[in-house]
Amino acid sequence: MAEQTATKPKLAAVSKGLPVRYEDVLEAKARIMGKVERTPLRHSRTLSEITGAEVWIKFENLQFTASFKERGALNKLMTLTEAERRAGVIAISAGNHAQGVAYNATRLGIPSTIVMPIGTPFVKVEHTRKHGARVLLHGESIADSFTYGYQLKEREGLTLIHPFDDPHIIAGQGTIALEMMEDNADLDMLVIPVGGGGLISGNAIAAKHLKAGIEIVGVEARMYPSLYAELRGETPITGGQTIAEGIAVKQCGRLNLEICRALVNDVVLVDEPHLEQAVTLFANVEKTVAEGAGAAALAALLAHPTRFAGRKVGLILCGGNIDPRLLASVLTRGLVREGRISRLRIIGDDRPGLLAKVSKVIGDLGANIIEVAHNRLALDVPAKGAEFDILIETRDAQHTQEVVDALSACGYPPRRL
Amino acid sequence: MAEQTATKPKLAAVSKGLPVRYEDVLEAKARIMGKVERTPLRHSRTLSEITGAEVWIKFENLQFTASFKERGALNKLMTLTEAERRAGVIAISAGNHAQGVAYNATRLGIPSTIVMPIGTPFVKVEHTRKHGARVLLHGESIADSFTYGYQLKEREGLTLIHPFDDPHIIAGQGTIALEMMEDNADLDMLVIPVGGGGLISGNAIAAKHLKAGIEIVGVEARMYPSLYAELRGETPITGGQTIAEGIAVKQCGRLNLEICRALVNDVVLVDEPHLEQAVTLFANVEKTVAEGAGAAALAALLAHPTRFAGRKVGLILCGGNIDPRLLASVLTRGLVREGRISRLRIIGDDRPGLLAKVSKVIGDLGANIIEVAHNRLALDVPAKGAEFDILIETRDAQHTQEVVDALSACGYPPRRL
Repeated sequence: MAEQTATKPKLAAVSKGLPVRYEDVLEAKARIMGKVERTPLRHSRTLSEITGAEVWIKFENLQFTASFKERGALNKLMTLTEAERRAGVIAISAGNHAQGVAYNATRLGIPSTIVMPIGTPFVKVEHTRKHGARVLLHGESIADSFTYGYQLKEREGLTLIHPFDDPHIIAGQGTIALEMMEDNADLDMLVIPVGGGGLISGNAIAAKHLKAGIEIVGVEARMYPSLYAELRGETPITGGQTIAEGIAVKQCGRLNLEICRALVNDVVLVDEPHLEQAVTLFANVEKTVAEGAGAAALAALLAHPTRFAGRKVGLILCGGNIDPRLLASVLTRGLVREGRISRLRIIGDDRPGLLAKVSKVIGDLGANIIEVAHNRLALDVPAKGAEFDILIETRDAQHTQEVVDALSACGYPPRRL
Repeated sequence: MAEQTATKPKLAAVSKGLPVRYEDVLEAKARIMGKVERTPLRHSRTLSEITGAEVWIKFENLQFTASFKERGALNKLMTLTEAERRAGVIAISAGNHAQGVAYNATRLGIPSTIVMPIGTPFVKVEHTRKHGARVLLHGESIADSFTYGYQLKEREGLTLIHPFDDPHIIAGQGTIALEMMEDNADLDMLVIPVGGGGLISGNAIAAKHLKAGIEIVGVEARMYPSLYAELRGETPITGGQTIAEGIAVKQCGRLNLEICRALVNDVVLVDEPHLEQAVTLFANVEKTVAEGAGAAALAALLAHPTRFAGRKVGLILCGGNIDPRLLASVLTRGLVREGRISRLRIIGDDRPGLLAKVSKVIGDLGANIIEVAHNRLALDVPAKGAEFDILIETRDAQHTQEVVDALSACGYPPRRL
């Protein structure tokens, strides 16, 4: 794509010599404009107060398939030749890329095949099928699916739509920063989740071209520090169950890495508790649903507050496809963290009426008993004693303390578990 | 406020003789514009497919305090005299009105007092205090708080900011429909949650003035059918625990009722399961957090699909302040309803290895065991038998069936609870 830029040397200054140029992002914008959502960039007063930064959020979870992946996929699909369109495309993904490709291919009348690992949740399979794709379940892992997908691509003459290591995908994702800078040119830095690097590489090109001094900071889950390690010349050691499965990628793309080396200022790592807290804050404060990867940029601000304090920071909330059970679990764990749900262990004499007494104390204080479990075989109490655990819900940590104090005052000091 | 309209008789056609005129809504708009969020009206393709209506959503949960209440409160506060402002205002509310008044009073430099019942969750007290209000906890119920609040108002010379039965409150809420009709003049009907009637009365005036033929349909939780009964000349019988506590109001306001009698076409009632389903759909599909009352309009479409089929329907998603534990619970119950979480009862011989066998069958199929409970005292099995309940999570209802079939095939047919 380099020859196109030869005539506009000034435009290409920042992206000079890189596999994707600023012009490619502009072309992507012209191609996909009006065909993807122009999502809002909103300032958050409350998250600014909490993090100490001036927080601006780009709501890419409001795309039709609830992630930014549509931008790159649509841009790529629109550059295919007539012959390629007729032959059809293939993608290997159980995630947001699958839906982005399936939905947009169908809109363009291009047959699409999506390969997913066996055991992919039915909901995801169904969603992707509903978007008009042929979904094939193959392989125990996504790596196995890739092997099968590549074979199928060869056999059927399909065009592979790579999730990140492709110039048109990169250019398509970069349209996000164009919109952000249009809405607020004052941003000092962009904080961008990193999986394979498609999102950050495209947006680094766009943002740095428009404002050379803007900082581009990547965020990775600590279990998958691929770009973090690469930029330090280390071999990434990755693995584990993160709630940010959308950025749990073992290896950055080749093109992505080249661009990131040139334009990314830094990558920060975030732990699971900060990812959980970020998902919770998005729901409770912004009233928006973020998946783990989607909340990674906010998690970075929570994990490294001094790094961002006082700066005008643009966060890309890149996706909202979180399993409802995971979301429910994260929200509930947030309450445990806040002290609103607590487990108290009570040890007493095993006589009738003990539970009644304890329950009355708790109920009189307006706290709610969620669960009671008797540990009759516990050896840390006398044979004639009784031990049980009560899960209670209170208004807040202070209310929990009142319950603990009241139980202690009436002779049953609980142990908090 | 009637004298103002004498000079513009045409404008007042729809609201003629009513306690609030269209001009009042326009004045409210001029007053509060730029000081409250101009929230987006977005079309939802997926919710349209699900409900059969053409669904447009007004996201009032994106107001700073996450509900529409700010509009009326700010409009009212801005009409106070200098003397009234200096003396301060009082509101009685443990909900969205409290935050709407506190936040906007502080912005205008008006001292505010909010009376809440004893036992109001600390989070709500804290939020309201943070907005700058003096919060007083008084009374066992909101009715008791009202008694105390009225006394305090008299004693301290405060101005009461009523949550709905006030012309300026009504006019302020009506600015929502102005924005909706500006964004999409084609709407055939507005579906609006009804508590005391402030939201629906203001918006009925605005919408019917702009489009005489537009239908205004109210929604109430079946446990609190206040307006529904009033419009039928019946005495409302109300009570019970609804997740839509924001519209659990025993009696409509006087002014509100007068306007509703003139302009509201119909009120529909919704049951708890539809309210829960609506909250779930807003989270899963729209990636937005709605409280029960906020989801009532969508619940109406789910409960009465033929009533809305094929029509261009504007829903007011009026608030997003749902307790995280309630949201988590609603999301989880949605999964139970979909068959993704199920409890299976297994009866077998009480010999070592039974649980291992059963667990292996479940694990091999890729289902997840969440909880195991042994019922060793159950009398419906022989003394030497064993009964236990397993809570499993599966990909979907079909996957659950596969687990049940596999357990049956190996001699342990489970009973689904």
